[in-house]
Amino acid sequence: MAKEKKFVEAITSMDEDFAQWYTDIVKKAELADYSGVRGCMVIRPYGYAIWENIQRELDRMFKETGHENVYMPMFIPESLLNKEKEHVEGFAPEVAWVTHGGSEELTERLCVRPTSETLFCDHWSKTVQSYNDLPKLYNQWCSVVRWEKTTRPFLRTAEFLWQEGHTIHATEKEAEEETVRMLNVYATLAEEFLAIPVVKGQKTDKEKFAGASATYTIEALMHDGKALQAGTSHNFGDNFAKAFDIQFTDKDGKLKYVYETSWGMSTRIMGAIIMVHGDDSGLVLPPKVAPIQVVIIPISQHVEGVVGKANEIKDRISKIARVKMDTSDKMPGWKFNEYEMKGVPVRLEIGPKDIEKNQVVLVRRDTREKTFVSLDEIETKLPELLEDIQKSLYDKAKSVREEKTYKAADIEELKELAENKPGFIKAMWCGDRECEDKIKEVAGTTSRCMPFEQEKVSDTCVCCGKKAEKMVYWGKAY
Amino acid sequence: MAKEKKFVEAITSMDEDFAQWYTDIVKKAELADYSGVRGCMVIRPYGYAIWENIQRELDRMFKETGHENVYMPMFIPESLLNKEKEHVEGFAPEVAWVTHGGSEELTERLCVRPTSETLFCDHWSKTVQSYNDLPKLYNQWCSVVRWEKTTRPFLRTAEFLWQEGHTIHATEKEAEEETVRMLNVYATLAEEFLAIPVVKGQKTDKEKFAGASATYTIEALMHDGKALQAGTSHNFGDNFAKAFDIQFTDKDGKLKYVYETSWGMSTRIMGAIIMVHGDDSGLVLPPKVAPIQVVIIPISQHVEGVVGKANEIKDRISKIARVKMDTSDKMPGWKFNEYEMKGVPVRLEIGPKDIEKNQVVLVRRDTREKTFVSLDEIETKLPELLEDIQKSLYDKAKSVREEKTYKAADIEELKELAENKPGFIKAMWCGDRECEDKIKEVAGTTSRCMPFEQEKVSDTCVCCGKKAEKMVYWGKAY
Ligand SMILES: [Zn+2]
Ligand SMILES: [Zn+2]
Repeated sequence: MAKEKKFVEAITSMDEDFAQWYTDIVKKAELADYSGVRGCMVIRPYGYAIWENIQRELDRMFKETGHENVYMPMFIPESLLNKEKEHVEGFAPEVAWVTHGGSEELTERLCVRPTSETLFCDHWSKTVQSYNDLPKLYNQWCSVVRWEKTTRPFLRTAEFLWQEGHTIHATEKEAEEETVRMLNVYATLAEEFLAIPVVKGQKTDKEKFAGASATYTIEALMHDGKALQAGTSHNFGDNFAKAFDIQFTDKDGKLKYVYETSWGMSTRIMGAIIMVHGDDSGLVLPPKVAPIQVVIIPISQHVEGVVGKANEIKDRISKIARVKMDTSDKMPGWKFNEYEMKGVPVRLEIGPKDIEKNQVVLVRRDTREKTFVSLDEIETKLPELLEDIQKSLYDKAKSVREEKTYKAADIEELKELAENKPGFIKAMWCGDRECEDKIKEVAGTTSRCMPFEQEKVSDTCVCCGKKAEKMVYWGKAY
Repeated sequence: MAKEKKFVEAITSMDEDFAQWYTDIVKKAELADYSGVRGCMVIRPYGYAIWENIQRELDRMFKETGHENVYMPMFIPESLLNKEKEHVEGFAPEVAWVTHGGSEELTERLCVRPTSETLFCDHWSKTVQSYNDLPKLYNQWCSVVRWEKTTRPFLRTAEFLWQEGHTIHATEKEAEEETVRMLNVYATLAEEFLAIPVVKGQKTDKEKFAGASATYTIEALMHDGKALQAGTSHNFGDNFAKAFDIQFTDKDGKLKYVYETSWGMSTRIMGAIIMVHGDDSGLVLPPKVAPIQVVIIPISQHVEGVVGKANEIKDRISKIARVKMDTSDKMPGWKFNEYEMKGVPVRLEIGPKDIEKNQVVLVRRDTREKTFVSLDEIETKLPELLEDIQKSLYDKAKSVREEKTYKAADIEELKELAENKPGFIKAMWCGDRECEDKIKEVAGTTSRCMPFEQEKVSDTCVCCGKKAEKMVYWGKAY
């Protein structure tokens, strides 16, 4: 028991030090590790398996909505990056530059892609000619580099994995529809697959993507009351098309610029899974994304028949769920802790007494509730349980978010909330950048989004008292 | 018809200019395109869909053999790359160097990974402690960079996509078994999935991977008689373990070095698919890897009922094959050429007369043979046809390879063959590097491999006349 105790004690509690708790889970659940390369992480098998499940689901949704995968170079020549002014200003300060190939100095520096708008535009400017070529609905899975000063696993790393969708359309309307469609795909992924409730909305001009006309976002609330931007979708209008001269001959015979979008979701979302669902025993995974949905732990496995029976059950369950059996010689209590740390949704225990009673014990990770299930009913009860866990996690996360969502009518109230009640603050805004800057200065909060679902908190701007244009979610963010 | 003619004429014939024929297919089948970045290509949707099918199949086989996916950083600090002497000597001349992050010069240069042995070793040196931690069976899907001087799409590019498997084991024997196991996985992929016959064998010391004790390879023969190394698997012994100090406490309580392997297959294999199966009308894809296995082309589609019937057939076929229907307003002949260029294994034609007769026309891409199939039999006949095409392509490729495999007893004969009969040359070798170098100098051929299936071509080395150690496949290679 001493060993088991130690295993649990090794995690800092959430309330004591949230940042340390987060780091402990990343390491002890074996999701990722630091590497010898500044700001870059090693994504370990268990962490990568979660990412693969997310990839599979997103990729399925992308293809269902007509998108095709492609691959663009990882390098962007400096002259290409420079073509769109706002874009280069946004990204140039944080890119890694390749200056030498082998022993030769390059005539032009190449940056390692921080995002690939410029590469897609370059390709399209050469290949798109007529309305028949439109739309192009592309996506790519890759890694990108942004030279961040301070880094944390998954949340902010110099290199991270993501997908970046890039599309071009014949009309502004189509581009806008695509931008919203893909934001909805992200929201569906977050809510239905990851059990993470999100607020959908538009970024203010200050917070939008470098070079975009409009940026939409899904914002999630972490356990500590900080927000996390979980996915963004950008409408570029014809900004890039003009910078890169992407024109097509329309049905009416006229030459027109295309309208462009891009959208991305990254391994940051792994941080959200940890910080929305995790607890002081470790990770808690929603069943849909869990690499292992059920772990079978035989009790008194030295007793004849136990492992055989457990194997039989494993074979049955493997037809309906992702299952693992642990017959290592560690003590059951040790194993319990280990799989709790890894957030496995359901533990199935089977021992000699259970075999006698033709039953198994199911213990759910989220509530630790224990149920005894007849072996005859396992094929119906287990999927029900997994579904219930998925739903409970979402409901719980949603009620936590609602508890931590406040309203402020004036700047004093906003400041007071920001200091004492970590969470989302709903407050009205006049639309002026000055007020946005001041709110940041005074309360330390940034605008997370102008939600699609608007409501009227008050009549006037929380900052200047002038007529309000929008209700905004404010908060501190990862 | 003029338009159609032009479409076909635009491809250079294989016999006229093989290199140009290859490039034409890459462009006209829309597999890849040049990018604005030196030596880097854009992999277009159709090309990427082929790669995705290869990925899915390989990944399935990797997981079936117990491997887990991970992700390592894309950068390697110079000091880390320098740790294994042979390895750095092999790769340093062809890496891209990152020297600046944002506006700051880095204190240590980072190379963009040309391969990731050093990163895996660094990770393991920190995480592996006991025999309980072994084996580690890892794989990663990523892109790598090698600063090649001359590049060709898929065959040799500055950046390419691949998977790299990296494993460590407690014993030399296990590592050797793993190395061979993964070579066999590659051979299975090539032969059964891509219909490409391969020769399995070991590389000579001269041709082996930088830092390896033994490199195994699968070698395929292209239509023009040149060889292509399609996948390699390396046994490092404890070379890297010693350089990176990866030790574990064994069951006997003693500290021991691990034994390591790595193995990789890249987008180069796309080049092999083109050059093994393609013809003067374009790409020819084996059904198993084809993104579209059947294309439905309605004939006289303006006639009432034709498109409706074609749709009905599409729904039925989509349950058993990857199917696409083309109802665009291009002429049928144009469409025939287009899908021939793209190598779609089966074309299904359906027109008013066919509907009357309750039949469809199936045309296979490889032989162009036409068959009339009753609509009632489509669910049985179509899978049979796809299977037959898969098999025929393999058989044809194998007999081409056999026709182009020669034997040489002395250097004159070898030289004569190398000059006039492009293909594999089987010849005996004494094992001396000097002879290997001389054969290259005299005949322009390199040793492709020492095949596992040895045979005796003669008693003495083809070069020096001393006692022969091994039969070797020699050839010119991509
Ligand atoms: Zn204001
Ligand atoms: Zn010799």
